[in-house]
Amino acid sequence: MFPMSESKLTLLAVGAHPDDIEFGCGGVLLAEVAGGSEARLCVCSRGEAGSNGSPNERESEARKAAALLGAAIEFLELGGDCHIELSARNNLVLAREIRRVRPDVFLSPTGRADQHPDHAVVSQLCRNAARLARYGGLSELRELAPHAIQHHFEYAITPGAEPPNDRFKLQVDISAQFGRWVELMECHATQLRTRHYVELQTARARLLGLTSGVEYAQALYPVDDLLINNLAALPRSVRLF
Amino acid sequence: MFPMSESKLTLLAVGAHPDDIEFGCGGVLLAEVAGGSEARLCVCSRGEAGSNGSPNERESEARKAAALLGAAIEFLELGGDCHIELSARNNLVLAREIRRVRPDVFLSPTGRADQHPDHAVVSQLCRNAARLARYGGLSELRELAPHAIQHHFEYAITPGAEPPNDRFKLQVDISAQFGRWVELMECHATQLRTRHYVELQTARARLLGLTSGVEYAQALYPVDDLLINNLAALPRSVRLF
Amino acid sequence: MFPMSESKLTLLAVGAHPDDIEFGCGGVLLAEVAGGSEARLCVCSRGEAGSNGSPNERESEARKAAALLGAAIEFLELGGDCHIELSARNNLVLAREIRRVRPDVFLSPTGRADQHPDHAVVSQLCRNAARLARYGGLSELRELAPHAIQHHFEYAITPGAEPPNDRFKLQVDISAQFGRWVELMECHATQLRTRHYVELQTARARLLGLTSGVEYAQALYPVDDLLINNLAALPRSVRLF
Amino acid sequence: MFPMSESKLTLLAVGAHPDDIEFGCGGVLLAEVAGGSEARLCVCSRGEAGSNGSPNERESEARKAAALLGAAIEFLELGGDCHIELSARNNLVLAREIRRVRPDVFLSPTGRADQHPDHAVVSQLCRNAARLARYGGLSELRELAPHAIQHHFEYAITPGAEPPNDRFKLQVDISAQFGRWVELMECHATQLRTRHYVELQTARARLLGLTSGVEYAQALYPVDDLLINNLAALPRSVRLF
Amino acid sequence: MFPMSESKLTLLAVGAHPDDIEFGCGGVLLAEVAGGSEARLCVCSRGEAGSNGSPNERESEARKAAALLGAAIEFLELGGDCHIELSARNNLVLAREIRRVRPDVFLSPTGRADQHPDHAVVSQLCRNAARLARYGGLSELRELAPHAIQHHFEYAITPGAEPPNDRFKLQVDISAQFGRWVELMECHATQLRTRHYVELQTARARLLGLTSGVEYAQALYPVDDLLINNLAALPRSVRLF
Amino acid sequence: MFPMSESKLTLLAVGAHPDDIEFGCGGVLLAEVAGGSEARLCVCSRGEAGSNGSPNERESEARKAAALLGAAIEFLELGGDCHIELSARNNLVLAREIRRVRPDVFLSPTGRADQHPDHAVVSQLCRNAARLARYGGLSELRELAPHAIQHHFEYAITPGAEPPNDRFKLQVDISAQFGRWVELMECHATQLRTRHYVELQTARARLLGLTSGVEYAQALYPVDDLLINNLAALPRSVRLF
Repeated sequence: MFPMSESKLTLLAVGAHPDDIEFGCGGVLLAEVAGGSEARLCVCSRGEAGSNGSPNERESEARKAAALLGAAIEFLELGGDCHIELSARNNLVLAREIRRVRPDVFLSPTGRADQHPDHAVVSQLCRNAARLARYGGLSELRELAPHAIQHHFEYAITPGAEPPNDRFKLQVDISAQFGRWVELMECHATQLRTRHYVELQTARARLLGLTSGVEYAQALYPVDDLLINNLAALPRSVRLF
Repeated sequence: MFPMSESKLTLLAVGAHPDDIEFGCGGVLLAEVAGGSEARLCVCSRGEAGSNGSPNERESEARKAAALLGAAIEFLELGGDCHIELSARNNLVLAREIRRVRPDVFLSPTGRADQHPDHAVVSQLCRNAARLARYGGLSELRELAPHAIQHHFEYAITPGAEPPNDRFKLQVDISAQFGRWVELMECHATQLRTRHYVELQTARARLLGLTSGVEYAQALYPVDDLLINNLAALPRSVRLF
Repeated sequence: MFPMSESKLTLLAVGAHPDDIEFGCGGVLLAEVAGGSEARLCVCSRGEAGSNGSPNERESEARKAAALLGAAIEFLELGGDCHIELSARNNLVLAREIRRVRPDVFLSPTGRADQHPDHAVVSQLCRNAARLARYGGLSELRELAPHAIQHHFEYAITPGAEPPNDRFKLQVDISAQFGRWVELMECHATQLRTRHYVELQTARARLLGLTSGVEYAQALYPVDDLLINNLAALPRSVRLF
Repeated sequence: MFPMSESKLTLLAVGAHPDDIEFGCGGVLLAEVAGGSEARLCVCSRGEAGSNGSPNERESEARKAAALLGAAIEFLELGGDCHIELSARNNLVLAREIRRVRPDVFLSPTGRADQHPDHAVVSQLCRNAARLARYGGLSELRELAPHAIQHHFEYAITPGAEPPNDRFKLQVDISAQFGRWVELMECHATQLRTRHYVELQTARARLLGLTSGVEYAQALYPVDDLLINNLAALPRSVRLF
Repeated sequence: MFPMSESKLTLLAVGAHPDDIEFGCGGVLLAEVAGGSEARLCVCSRGEAGSNGSPNERESEARKAAALLGAAIEFLELGGDCHIELSARNNLVLAREIRRVRPDVFLSPTGRADQHPDHAVVSQLCRNAARLARYGGLSELRELAPHAIQHHFEYAITPGAEPPNDRFKLQVDISAQFGRWVELMECHATQLRTRHYVELQTARARLLGLTSGVEYAQALYPVDDLLINNLAALPRSVRLF
Repeated sequence: MFPMSESKLTLLAVGAHPDDIEFGCGGVLLAEVAGGSEARLCVCSRGEAGSNGSPNERESEARKAAALLGAAIEFLELGGDCHIELSARNNLVLAREIRRVRPDVFLSPTGRADQHPDHAVVSQLCRNAARLARYGGLSELRELAPHAIQHHFEYAITPGAEPPNDRFKLQVDISAQFGRWVELMECHATQLRTRHYVELQTARARLLGLTSGVEYAQALYPVDDLLINNLAALPRSVRLF
């Protein structure tokens, strides 16, 4: 009754900075691409404010990771790292990107403030853009047909960005993608000079996997409810105990 | 990778009083039975404290509804209506029932206190029982093999029992079952003398359906996360806007 | 001791789009006007981004509804539909409107993000404006005397905009206004082409009424506590069970 | 439409220990009695576990305070101080008291755990008892007609027992009762030997009064929504700023 | 292992308006200065919107209080009272101030909206600025070396700005500073004409002190966890009961 | 002003089952013992319900771990594994243990329900017992002088038992204890046959350490606020970014 389109999915993942997508949901994207879906990356700054890596280096690292993933990548101009504001203009820039890519699945950062102020701002911009993308009367977007995404999920870039820990989440088994996920993350060499970011992410994925009985897992937080006709349509519950 | 068993499911639904299951998740059970699954009902009192209907009448109404649904029904002795306590004994009675029925899917009331104090107590007993059912060392249950349910969902008997309204829920399209669901509820004739319970439930189901684009829907609240390998495995998101 | 002014009240209701007020609190306004109070409507856009209806049509529908309600209506310029930002300028535009109308009761949308991003923004602007309206030193508003509202209530435009469901609310019995409320909503004919908005609202009102023992009710969420000298001064509690 | 009964109200206030009522809502009760209502006190232990004061002394202090307030007082046997359990029996003991007194207004402690474990237990017992009091089929209570209270409010015995500080509350102006309220509290002389309980309560009442523009106020937390026909029926909002 | 620097601390306290710091954490600053630390005040407006006091009077009152405290004071230009927006520019202005002062301890207002809209905005700006101050790549701040604060605490300017009341807080015993704290607050004479602000703050401090067994206390809300090697390193728990 | 006693501390840690303490706060206890403090373990069942290990084996594993830690160990009779109820009797049994041991620091499980129903029950019993231990009038405990603990902290046995993830916690650096902590956990050999419990705990500790800049950390959740005279008395904030 309510099947996902049989054909392969198009995913659009948004990140505030050049490495956010790979760290936050790289394993998920690898699993989807391995399953035949198309992944598109949209990066909202070039990491201009970071202590390590020039904007050019950051962009080039992101392009390398996208190539490894087999995904197209786009850089949007929203004001620049640490300068991204919650504005009507920025909502519309992201809404235009959604209309252009026309994704089935939209992935964006969670809105819980963590170490970098841009994360929560980009999260809210994405929530707004996913609405605006389907409104028929927006004059700035007139040249692109309205588009309604099928699914909107959020990913947590850091432990500090995770939603309240009693909320439902989708756990995605990324065990088969583990090695390539580490490679994706290691593309961002400038960011690994002073921080254990790769180990931070793999420890998260291992801990989540241990709680659900797989090797490694990453979490997606659904923005909307799911609608079913029949319980047989559901995937497995995480219920080890 | 993580398919639900291909074969038909066994569902066990628990209610505190003779009409709770039909009112709270009757449409869902009808949909499952229509799909070939087996539903089993477990009622924890005979409504002895109610202002309308004798215990015998209440039991007989519940048996009539179960027959209409095509489900076996069991009455458990947990102390009686308004006398159900959170006790080790009651946890074990319900755990024994789980081991006996060996359900794939377990349905129980939500834990948010509403008009009747028994609802939240039975909710907690069910959460405990679902754990105890799988522990190997419980001497009282030794004669029955441990059993691990696949899914645990909760249903809200009244609007006041609904979990916080920002939590994820599964919406089940019960449009095709609507007429028979009303019949199920109307089996509980003694309860309909002084309250508009049927209209209360159909208004809830219509309102939920209006928000998800179907005629009528009932909500299930998952106790656990879901685990997937691939987003294509997911049912549709509720995303009308 | 703390009576509301014996004389009739002036109410100011703010909506982000031309139909928000009628859908979210139209029954309440009808009840107040029927009781002799004066209602004033303030609309913050002309629905320019909507898929159905031109801005002129939207404005004309709102004016028709206002006439039916017997209320004056004002359109404010805050950037336009989907372009309303949380800015000092917009706070002041709304504060000026409050000083101009000098309402006893101020009604504005709830701040929980729902389908349209403007709703939560206008909610915050209204909260700010209600404060600014009473500060004596704002040079932009110097020509209008400061004004302190007596009551600030919020209304939820959609189920998704309702505050956490364990919060206190005022339920207003709108049974006597039901027919005229439907007429008010039906003034917004362009919005009813593709969505069951009227039935969405009447199902909400019927469900709320069923929980409080009246035909139809709408909810208001108080921003502030209430202060009494004596419990006899209180209206009835909703306590059916 | 929904007036409180014109005639004077009957209030029933429940406390876990001999001094809880006076400390937690003594000013409110004084205001009600001053307005012609009847107050009844129900105390669930004799403070047997306290470090100061014998049970006889504690009971005698409570009787002295009740006399000063002009209220009847009853001591219930629920197991004794620090021995009060959440049990069906205790629910019924309190429900019987409600049926006996037949109050319009029921006052009980909040359920947030604070320094004394009995407070939250008695809170839950009272919530249950207020339901059970109106069920027609409870055989233990057959000799007393079911009774439905009109209002259920909770009071916070200590700052630590206050509900989440973003919840709505009724603020009751007790300025006119202040002196007599202090006298009521001072009846509990054994409890004042080692703690500044009176100053703790008067500092709370002064702080609350300062936020609402009166001398002294105490807070009541409504268990249910309020239902109105008309906003003119409402008491004043607390809105100083 | 993780000692605070043995040498005296530098504190930077930020307030939205000229009196916020003294009212919200004046006692804490007095205690720190008395202990040999250096306090620096940063005020984000001159109270231009207030009903009482001209901007010049307000600035002069703040300078008088700073002198009494023995603290340097700085006025920042963020748009003016009631005009402070959440913007990249304002984040950077505050981040520059942090780099200039290089504090060990950073004190800023809590983010819970209360009577004045500026409070929550300045709170968020400070959270952002504390992050930006340590990013190496921000071109606007290139002339000042990045700075990482050691501690970030928030203070609540009013009872309405206090975080959820079940959250952990640091209570600071300010009994020895009480008299001088009142003097600090009384420097803001224009603000005391129409409101009991001093009594509001002293009642809060007395109430908090009564719950922790000291004369007067003020609360700080830590933004981050604390890290210890050993429990012996911890200060006393507030545990009177 | 408020120093912890200079002399070594006595810690009392309570666990529902024979391995809970070692898994949940074993590293913390090792650090304390290494610092010269005395640790006492109190186990509330012998794991009778577990699928692996007999009660005798479980007790013997716990005694082995206690010996390795250098701690005395006590087994309490509260009804047995899966039979521990929230009762006045059980509150008193634990209160007696507190009076007997007279700890400075009390460690107990968090109250968030996770896989095993006993955990939340024992958590609540411990909260109650810590109160009852200091009440002077409890006749059952008359032979032991009342005792007031200095600190009460909770530990989370599993990720599912962790409090809301936005709450403050104390992070304890257990890097120096890591190897011995693994040895402690491995004493519980029967529990490691079918589950990766040791890796679950070490992955948690590594992840927490990565967020605070140490090798391994365990979290303690304070039940009460902390009281200080001076910020210099505070340990380091976790503030990597």
